[in-house]
Amino acid sequence: MKPSFILLITALSILLTACNEDQSGSGISQAVHKSKTYNWKMVTTWPPGFPVLQEGAERFAENINVMSNGRLKIKVYAGGELIPALQTFDAVSQGTVEMGHGSAYYWAGKVPEAQFFSTVPFGMTARGMNAWLYDGGGLELWREVYKPFHVVPFPLGNTGVQMGGWFNKEINSLEDIKGLKMRIPGLGGKVFAKAGGNPVLLAGSEVYTALERNTIDATEWIGPFHDQRLGLYRAAEHYYYPGWHEPGTVLELTINQRAWDSLPADLQAIVSNAAMAENLRMFSEMEQKNMAALKELKDRPKVQIHRFPDDVLAKLKALTDETLEEEAAKDPKFKHIYEAYQTFRLQNDAWSDISENAYLAIEK
Amino acid sequence: MKPSFILLITALSILLTACNEDQSGSGISQAVHKSKTYNWKMVTTWPPGFPVLQEGAERFAENINVMSNGRLKIKVYAGGELIPALQTFDAVSQGTVEMGHGSAYYWAGKVPEAQFFSTVPFGMTARGMNAWLYDGGGLELWREVYKPFHVVPFPLGNTGVQMGGWFNKEINSLEDIKGLKMRIPGLGGKVFAKAGGNPVLLAGSEVYTALERNTIDATEWIGPFHDQRLGLYRAAEHYYYPGWHEPGTVLELTINQRAWDSLPADLQAIVSNAAMAENLRMFSEMEQKNMAALKELKDRPKVQIHRFPDDVLAKLKALTDETLEEEAAKDPKFKHIYEAYQTFRLQNDAWSDISENAYLAIEK
Repeated sequence: MKPSFILLITALSILLTACNEDQSGSGISQAVHKSKTYNWKMVTTWPPGFPVLQEGAERFAENINVMSNGRLKIKVYAGGELIPALQTFDAVSQGTVEMGHGSAYYWAGKVPEAQFFSTVPFGMTARGMNAWLYDGGGLELWREVYKPFHVVPFPLGNTGVQMGGWFNKEINSLEDIKGLKMRIPGLGGKVFAKAGGNPVLLAGSEVYTALERNTIDATEWIGPFHDQRLGLYRAAEHYYYPGWHEPGTVLELTINQRAWDSLPADLQAIVSNAAMAENLRMFSEMEQKNMAALKELKDRPKVQIHRFPDDVLAKLKALTDETLEEEAAKDPKFKHIYEAYQTFRLQNDAWSDISENAYLAIEK
Repeated sequence: MKPSFILLITALSILLTACNEDQSGSGISQAVHKSKTYNWKMVTTWPPGFPVLQEGAERFAENINVMSNGRLKIKVYAGGELIPALQTFDAVSQGTVEMGHGSAYYWAGKVPEAQFFSTVPFGMTARGMNAWLYDGGGLELWREVYKPFHVVPFPLGNTGVQMGGWFNKEINSLEDIKGLKMRIPGLGGKVFAKAGGNPVLLAGSEVYTALERNTIDATEWIGPFHDQRLGLYRAAEHYYYPGWHEPGTVLELTINQRAWDSLPADLQAIVSNAAMAENLRMFSEMEQKNMAALKELKDRPKVQIHRFPDDVLAKLKALTDETLEEEAAKDPKFKHIYEAYQTFRLQNDAWSDISENAYLAIEK
């Protein structure tokens, strides 16, 4: 290449860089941006005041308010306060509100493959999910999946390993699952049905009464902390572990694409850092509250904490693989995410086997 | 109370609120704060370009630069670039620099109880440490411990469960540890000595050559990713798990108290959210890189991955308890933090036993 030509290219690239910088906001447009105040709405899928989850969404909004010095104000509405809980995704997609908080498996009817960004039975725990999402290409896939809906997702919280649930009778074998009426939604419910159980759909508000009146024989909810608050130990005394159907449910922040694009770079960075911070904080708070609540539950004379028999877990695991394969066979989009998830999960399992898993298995 | 008196109190409280708001920065002083630019220095304990750890510190600084729109600029120096790595804490304490990044056990000589905020053998993993620090009172204790040094600590990263190390010979029993020369620092080293081993102090830069030339028989380093980069698989072929001496090393951000106090509320919130975000991000990156590196290590024909025998782990665990009790007996400050740590750890263990631990133990 001739030197004069190189000079020309250099000059052009300097000009282009300057243009790009101006567009990206370092020039006059940025100054306008900087003085602009954004008043956003966020709707969630949680009941008003729901501990840790709704509280975490509100703390996230308040952190952004402080960090942005009031330039990005987010008013948070619990499920039903502005729109029904399960219309959160649509509201964000349509731009009725700028932000939502929930979990991706709530939109399984519309986007079946979204479940992998929330949790699947016998899938990865919080540790593996975060590694996949932030560093294993998971978040990029998630953005791709939500792109047609004009929604930008971020991980924002994790429930940790959820408990196996409360039962009115003991589970000693696979036989005991046959015909059992259990409140268990989603993929877990499908697997439970394959095992001969009778999954029942019930809103959180109906669970306690149904269990207490024997309308259902069992229910899963979350973990010791939320389960105790719902009083489930008064409705059924058998509490089961390990949880298998939701091993580390990722909660999600959704942002309307146009709203996200309208933010200057500093506010975008504030939102994404606040989301990552709150992702860890909510998980840590869940863990701390669950361990404190477990201690209280153990002190209640009636509560019996049992382990599911190995053959029950093995059967549920086999049926989970079968269920995921079936879903993948009939839906190429589901298959695409399933394969990416599985590839990462196998590496994660191999590493866990000689790190966290092996360490936790040391006799204490 | 008379109505007129209530009115007087109300008027006074309004006046006081107005005063407080002005002091807290919503008035003229805040406007001055908002236009001020802070140019800070951060020193780390890592070699220049050290993957994940030094890179994470630099990403943290850059995130703050973007979020604050250039109002808080942090120039990051690796160990030795501005001051020696192990003088990081003193430099922050004395205000020579505003920020530091390292891990609390590096200051064990000066502050023995600081080790609990980093990691102790057979202690909590990242999940439990974050729950303790953010929601179990751990961070408050940590701030109390560093207060006399005018240093404000924040968790900023986690290595995950570190590996048991590389050995020139197989470890089949406790006998095989007798006289073994191993590079293993800190409390792990003390425990190793009690087990009959010969702990050796070596800087990271000397480890490879010492192992390759049989000057030492074994070394721990970090995990598959960093170990592979150091070429340890070429120096010794026996790679051991589970790690026991560093089950989830917390990395720390330290900030000089006066520097921290000088920041307005929005920049303080930006720093603390960026720290929490990077805490999770570094851990996730470590996990992802370790699982990818483990896959590569397994493909190397010479590398043999072994599990420590149960009796070796049981002995090391018993000697760890003994060591911690001895340290606590001679140092009331150490005892104070040890007891708080133990109380939380027992709750964490009980919860792990029916959640993460039980889940990971399901036959895959």
